[in-house]
This record gives sequence, C-alpha cells and structure tokens, in this order.
Amino acid sequence: MTPSTSPLTTDLYELNMVQAYLDRGEDKEAVFEFFVRKLPARRGFLLAAGLADVLDYLETIRFSAEELAWLKGTGRFRDNLLDYLAGFRFTGDVHAIPEGTVCFPNEPLIRIVAPLPQAQLIETRIINIMHFQTLIASKAARMVLAAPGKILSDFGLRSAHGAEAGLFSARASYIAGFSSAANVLAGAKYGIPVAGTMAHSYVQIHDNEAQAFEDFARTRPEGVILLIDTYDTEAGARKVVALAPRLKADGIAIRGVRIDSGDLIAMSRKVRAILDEGGLREVIILVSGGINEDVLQTMKAEKAPIDGFGIGVNLDSSIDAPSLDCAYKLQEYAGVPRRKRSEGKATWPGRKQVWRQYDTNGRMAGDVLSVESDTQKGETLVVPIMRGGKRLAAESLDDIRARAARDLARLPEPLRQLEQGVVYPVKVADTLVALAQEADRFTARHY
Amino acid sequence: MTPSTSPLTTDLYELNMVQAYLDRGEDKEAVFEFFVRKLPARRGFLLAAGLADVLDYLETIRFSAEELAWLKGTGRFRDNLLDYLAGFRFTGDVHAIPEGTVCFPNEPLIRIVAPLPQAQLIETRIINIMHFQTLIASKAARMVLAAPGKILSDFGLRSAHGAEAGLFSARASYIAGFSSAANVLAGAKYGIPVAGTMAHSYVQIHDNEAQAFEDFARTRPEGVILLIDTYDTEAGARKVVALAPRLKADGIAIRGVRIDSGDLIAMSRKVRAILDEGGLREVIILVSGGINEDVLQTMKAEKAPIDGFGIGVNLDSSIDAPSLDCAYKLQEYAGVPRRKRSEGKATWPGRKQVWRQYDTNGRMAGDVLSVESDTQKGETLVVPIMRGGKRLAAESLDDIRARAARDLARLPEPLRQLEQGVVYPVKVADTLVALAQEADRFTARHY
Repeated sequence: MTPSTSPLTTDLYELNMVQAYLDRGEDKEAVFEFFVRKLPARRGFLLAAGLADVLDYLETIRFSAEELAWLKGTGRFRDNLLDYLAGFRFTGDVHAIPEGTVCFPNEPLIRIVAPLPQAQLIETRIINIMHFQTLIASKAARMVLAAPGKILSDFGLRSAHGAEAGLFSARASYIAGFSSAANVLAGAKYGIPVAGTMAHSYVQIHDNEAQAFEDFARTRPEGVILLIDTYDTEAGARKVVALAPRLKADGIAIRGVRIDSGDLIAMSRKVRAILDEGGLREVIILVSGGINEDVLQTMKAEKAPIDGFGIGVNLDSSIDAPSLDCAYKLQEYAGVPRRKRSEGKATWPGRKQVWRQYDTNGRMAGDVLSVESDTQKGETLVVPIMRGGKRLAAESLDDIRARAARDLARLPEPLRQLEQGVVYPVKVADTLVALAQEADRFTARHY
Repeated sequence: MTPSTSPLTTDLYELNMVQAYLDRGEDKEAVFEFFVRKLPARRGFLLAAGLADVLDYLETIRFSAEELAWLKGTGRFRDNLLDYLAGFRFTGDVHAIPEGTVCFPNEPLIRIVAPLPQAQLIETRIINIMHFQTLIASKAARMVLAAPGKILSDFGLRSAHGAEAGLFSARASYIAGFSSAANVLAGAKYGIPVAGTMAHSYVQIHDNEAQAFEDFARTRPEGVILLIDTYDTEAGARKVVALAPRLKADGIAIRGVRIDSGDLIAMSRKVRAILDEGGLREVIILVSGGINEDVLQTMKAEKAPIDGFGIGVNLDSSIDAPSLDCAYKLQEYAGVPRRKRSEGKATWPGRKQVWRQYDTNGRMAGDVLSVESDTQKGETLVVPIMRGGKRLAAESLDDIRARAARDLARLPEPLRQLEQGVVYPVKVADTLVALAQEADRFTARHY
C-alpha cells in the first residue's frame, strides 16, 4: 500500500458517499470539472499539467485483497460497497485542456463524465495530482520566462513535500521548459534528462580540494561539474584552472563549475575572470542556493556571467504560493445542470468549453467560457482524451513541452512579466450565464 | 518504480559520488547529521517527526533488477557501482532525537554513522522525509496549541503536494495532537483514526436537501456529520432539527453538522441556536475552509460555539512557511571532524548531543549543544535508534503522540503563543566551539 498507487489515497468521505449511492442505486451519469478558482498574487496565468498521471491513475486503479480486507476490518462499510470496490474499473469519459497549455481561472482543466459512484470515488486523487503539477508548472514557467536561454535544473527533491512531490515537480518543470532534474527517478519514469554535480561532503572527505576535483573528474570523464565553494570560491576556481591541462592531456574536459553560496553575482564575475584568464572560456558557471524568478530576473538585468541554475525549494514547494484555490465540482447530474451556491463559492454549471482568440501577432487576445454546445469564435481548448475508460491517444512528454513553449511564446507581453498589472480577459458567455440561472431555478424549486 | 519505495528517489549526484568513492576505495566511516539551520518567521520551536519512515527506508532499501537495468542503460555508471547497488544494504548506526520531541535549530534530529558510500547514498531521501514531516508536525503543533480541547482533523490530502505529502501530513499532524485525518491510507498504513463527512456534490445530486440528509444518515447510522451549507446554512440547520426525531425513532443519532463557507463565527452561533432550540444540544458543529492557527486563536477569543475543525491546505502545505532551511552535513570522516566553511553556511562539526534543563515548574529552561563525549547537565535528547542496520526498538505512534503532548505542555509559556518575541536559549558548549576551531585548522592545513 504505497501512496502513489493505492486507491486508499482518498478521503474517507468519498467512500462514505459511494456507500450511500450504492445503497440508493444512485448511479446515473455525473459530470464533474476540475478548475482553479483564482490566481495567486503576482500570477497572470496557469500552465496545465498532471493529466497524463491522472490518466494512468484512472486506467490502473484497482483495490487489492489487502486493501479490501482493511476496509472490511474497519466495520464501516457493507458488502455491497466492498463488492463494488473489488470489481472497480473506471469506465468514464475524460475531456481536458491538454498539458502544456496556458490557461486561466474557471477554465475546466479536466472533465469527468461517469456513473456517479465512479466520478465521486476518484475526486481526491484527481485534485491531488492536477493541483500540484499545475501549481509547479505555473511556477516553473515564470522562471523560464525570467531566464531566457539559460540552463534551469530542478534540484528540489530533498525539500519537496515527500517523494511524489519531487517526482511531479521534475515532470511539471520539464514541461514548462526546464532542461533537467537531479531526481534520478524522473529519468527512469518519465525520461527526463537527469543532471547532477557533487556535494560539499565530497570535497570535505578529501584532505585536499584539488585532489577531490581530480578524482571526481577522472571518475566521470564526461560532463564533469566541480563544486568550488566549499572553502574559498576563488581559490577553488584557480584549482580548476591548474587542473584542466593535466586532465585535457588525458582527454578529459571539465564542463563547468558550481557556486552554491555567497554573493552569486559578484562571485560569478570573479570566477568567470579566473576561468577566462586560465583559458577555460568554454567552462560554464552554474549556481544554486535561493534561486527564484526574481533572482533570475536580477541576474539577467545585471548580466551576471551565469550559464545555468540549480533551483530547489523555491520551485518544488512553490514557496511564494504553495497552493492554488481549486475545486472538482459537480456540473451536471442525470442530465440536469447543477451548481453550488455556498457564499462566495458559487460555480459555473454544465459541460464547458473554452474558445481562445489571437491577435494579428499571434498573441493570445482573450478567452470565452461557455457550455460546449455553444458556438463561439476561436480555437477550442477542451478536447476528448479518454472514452469508456480508454485513452484516445498518448502524448510524449516532449510534445507537451513543445506545446508549453509555443503557448508561453504566445502570451501577451504583460503576462510574460513577473508583475503583470493586467488581467487576461476571460469572458463568460451569455449562454453560460443563462444556464447558471436555470440551475439556480432548478435548485430553488427543489432544495 | 513508485516514488515512495524506489531507491531512485535520490539526486543523481549521490550516485556520481558513490561511483567516485568506489573507484578510489573510499569507504571509511562517515558521520552525517540532519538538522534545521533556522526557524521560519513566527516559529519558536520544532516538533521532530519522520524518523520511523526513515528507519523503514533504511531497513528496506533495495535496487530491483528493473532499476539496475535502467541505471546500466544510461551508460553513466560502471559495473563496480552497479554490483555495489545490486547488493546494497544499509548496515550503519542511527542516533536521533525521538519523534514528538520539541527541538530547535542546530540540534541533530538524526545522525547516520556508516561507511561513506552508504551514508552518502541515503542523503536525499532522509532529508526528503525528515524535512517534510518535521515541517508539518511543527505547523500542526501551533494549531493544537491555539485550539485546546478542540477536535482537529487533517482534511488536506487533495491540496497536499502529491500522495505521499498527504500521507505524511496525516502522520505528522496526528503526532502533534490532531484527532484524525480524512486520508484513508493514513488509517490503513499508520492506524490513524480516519474521519469524514459528505461533499456538496452529495447534496446537489439529490433534488431535495432534506432527503439527502436522511439518505446519508440512514446509510451511515453511526457518527453521521451533515454538511449544511450547500444552499442556505440556517435552512440546512433547521432541516437537521426536523429530521432528527424521525431518525431517533429508528435509533439513529446525528453526531454533528459541518459548515464550509461564509462567516464561520457568526454562522456557528446561528446554527448553535437553531440546534439548541430544536433540542439538539449534543449535536456538534464542525467547520472547514481557510482554517489556520490564527483563525483558531480568533475563534477561541470569540468563544465561537465550534467543536471541531477540518484543516486542509494550511496544514498540508504549511502555507505560511512551506519549507525549513535544513541540511544533512558531513560531521566527521575517518575519525576526523569536518565542517563546511562556505559563506554564511558554516556548520558545527562532530557527533553531537543535546542537554536540556527544566525549571522548577517542569518547563524547558534551555538546551546545551555539544559533542556527545562532553559532560553537561540536563536530560540528553539524542539516543541510539539503530545499530548495524537493525532497529533497536519500535515505538507506537501513540507513544510518539504522547511524547509530543508532554513536550508541548513543557514549552515555556511565551513559546506556546503564535507570536513568541523570545528565542529559546540553545547554548553552544565551549567544547564544541573548540572542536570547530580544530576542524578549521585541519581544513586550513589541507585544502
């Protein structure tokens, strides 16, 4: 029973409700949509991510004998539920805005159409996957926009919120345009390029820093990156200069150096000068420690001679906004549109589509949100993904990454800045407003 | 290859360094300690958590044939490393501050003593587990202190950063004194009490809210909690009053109601009045939505008639401080103390112990940090946990939770407040200062 694969990674109330539905034979078609309610401060857009992992979940969700036995042992559930779970398969339809698409609040990132007990049971895990990956892809996109042409690598596994957060962060940031991740599992599971240098402890166990550099370079003759700040960064850079000719004689090239502490801008200039004077113009400089999009922007403005960045907790925990206000809400049941009216939390009912228009420069010019049966102008974003529990087509991660690059290039210029000061226009169509009123009248007649 | 169990949940540089160590036969005894460098804003203490999951990891870490094949396929590693990983077992010693202990920056939450390649390989995952669980236990402890006598339940799985974050959050908050979690897997895996109510969608699929309440109550005749804010909270409360006698006639008692939106303080008073007038004094009121320790403190000051709180993203993402500045640092290698001197990141070397003193009221009065061979006054916090890769004793989660309750009760009064304004005294003993100087002299001679 590991958290990423166990169907018990869910809230108890999902099981309670499924029990109640089964008891009443309440299994008509339900429509749920997942969407973000509003953007965090300083954010102008979202980058959709997580769908492929949701689809894997839907295709493989099974209750094991051990899990069923545990549920039975709680004494909370009756045999009709346990039998239902024993044979559980997701057989519904999925529509979604494809991963790597720039999107906005209230737009349906994913829509589930399935018999009610199915659509309910999967709620928690769908939110858990979609929320986090979209959160991180959206954060990573800001870093990508702030550091054009730079190498960005996800170094955040250690401070990520558990093992899956580290894995999902690597995936979401790669979609947004990061070059690589330090997380080895991200390479094994998703084919993401993995990257890594050395730790301070590696230098410390050696009696001599120069010897540590040489040993490491000879062990890893390709793409060696040496960490030079354990004791004295400039001295470390000079040792690299002294070492390089001896390694070169043996056919070993040093790819780069990493600096992990101190004033990174000032130090990168000193180190660049030392390397250049030593004939190592091709040796790149990577930095790490406290990097976020604002630091990246400052580095760019200061023209710091830094080629790449290892980014940890600011990415993996999305430090400035560690969550998105989001929901997986019932939109329709048994053919009737529904919406919640709780104070401050009313939602748009029905099965929705998004139409996007572009200006003459190919930049995004505005979206219209309406029911999918409506006719509006523009490119439609919500597409069929799964039918009857079967995926219609698989996308490669590189295809998704290419879509993200294309969409980030199509952002209106103000939204490409760290401080936007503008809100991208998402118009709610009259048809959808009318449907919401109809849903309210239905509710008023019945509740 | 799932993230919680795969040994590939690690940073590439750990494997690179192990490769280099194996190439040079560098496998002498290494000592690493994990500690938090400093407290986030507004925090006065830490609550240690995560150790049991680290021990599970150390006892079970194995590289599967599939994982080894993938590593080989990358072309990055030589056979000596692949053979080493194929037979990898952790055989080292572990000391730690037991889970549920109140502790402070620079105090060693866990110490690993093992042959260098072993101690290095496990770095990333140890930090990943200890950092997050300690982060959440420390956050949860603030909520527990702000809401004495109240029911607190972890509702945060959906917005946690992935599946494992939700699971670890349930565990860490239970240690800190939460009553339960909504996460079913937290029950199955750790034996934590699981709790849950119903969703708005449950009410919405019914044509009639009163019928939704009755159906749910009849399905779950024990401990029923009804969500009353889908349409109109006061009307919902009156429906509960109307329904209760009919259910009671069938032996079904309503345990409580939940309110998830609106002005929770004002609404809880109105609902309490409706329930009391309807003869339902024993029906409890739970609230959810935006609850954090400051809200809890306000509710207490306002004497809101609320019995329990479902707490989501503010807990599971530790919203105000989603990470701790922490490190797993080499303290000693081959019998020689080591420390890093990078700017602003110098650490205390050697194998450390913490001595704690109490005042005459049994409140914590100050800690001393020194090397374990030192003699200081007070209770020692760092204890042996694992020897030669074998756990010395297992602790139950309830024992850990009892330790946390005891330690939270022993906090000095200012540290029990949400704003402390004081710093708990942790003195660095002269012996440790002298050792740091010795480590620097060693480094100066060699680097």
